[in-house]
Amino acid sequence: MPKSTTVKDYIRTIADFPHEGIMFRDVTTLFADPRGFRMAVDQMLHPYAGMRIDKVVGLEARGFILGGAVAHQLSVGFVPIRKKGKLPGKVISEDYQLEYGEAVVEVHDDAISAGEKVLLVDDLLATGGTAEAGIRLIERLGGEILSCAFIIDLPELGGRARLEKLGMDVHALCAFEGL
Amino acid sequence: MPKSTTVKDYIRTIADFPHEGIMFRDVTTLFADPRGFRMAVDQMLHPYAGMRIDKVVGLEARGFILGGAVAHQLSVGFVPIRKKGKLPGKVISEDYQLEYGEAVVEVHDDAISAGEKVLLVDDLLATGGTAEAGIRLIERLGGEILSCAFIIDLPELGGRARLEKLGMDVHALCAFEGL
Repeated sequence: MPKSTTVKDYIRTIADFPHEGIMFRDVTTLFADPRGFRMAVDQMLHPYAGMRIDKVVGLEARGFILGGAVAHQLSVGFVPIRKKGKLPGKVISEDYQLEYGEAVVEVHDDAISAGEKVLLVDDLLATGGTAEAGIRLIERLGGEILSCAFIIDLPELGGRARLEKLGMDVHALCAFEGL
Repeated sequence: MPKSTTVKDYIRTIADFPHEGIMFRDVTTLFADPRGFRMAVDQMLHPYAGMRIDKVVGLEARGFILGGAVAHQLSVGFVPIRKKGKLPGKVISEDYQLEYGEAVVEVHDDAISAGEKVLLVDDLLATGGTAEAGIRLIERLGGEILSCAFIIDLPELGGRARLEKLGMDVHALCAFEGL
């Protein structure tokens, strides 16, 4: 019998993007495939079957594609966490370290209500810096994070350990070794 | 009997964003509401019931939230059109005029195959500049655009007329007068 196709099989690796030495894990080939995209959304939600989720929060920009689909599948609302200056309403902000310098992410201050159960989604867990900033934003609004769900984990970059140290439940559909 | 809630009722207007004199139509309040988000996706797809759609293409960044949900609902693949430099693979590019200066959008050159039926989605149709650049990208890859679907039309900005002049079928869920 042929080996079944997995989510990981749909992910393309592109060398030296965005700069030399980086093996970029490209989920656009997963999203563009009807079976791949559906498989990713279904597998991402599998651990939470029967659990209460009030809102899906996605990180800009690939987390929007996935988060839109996941929220729709659950019939719940979707909340974007965006880069600084993109959201039109009143926001709260968190900054986080990048390889060089820092970045700021924001969420509308009325996007999540106290006590709401939140699923945080993104395509990739690397150092966990953006995810941690997102977690702080959600918790400042009183949201209770059920879990953080990713398609890809890059364990060598330590993101999973970092988020688990914050008390987070972390799920990823696959892992790639190396950076 | 109370008047039923429409998609438009979920959209928030924020004055003077991103700059003075602009009434910004904010769809995040629509997406954050479980009934609003589902209503938007369902109504967006209603005109195409029974028609063949192979790919949903969404414009960065709010078009990703909507496009992810719409593609998932249809069980088809999703393809992002992104701002310059964001896509890791081999791309084709189109530039378009902004109020001040110009911008470039890109798509992976293998994201759409010749003859595929494409639904282009975005949250807002204003001047139609970004949508037109997206249409050119899809058509250069041989995609056949079934329709362009938006949540909001701003008719005074002329986007609908511009896209219809290109032979496009255009649908929007609601319209706002003024800029």
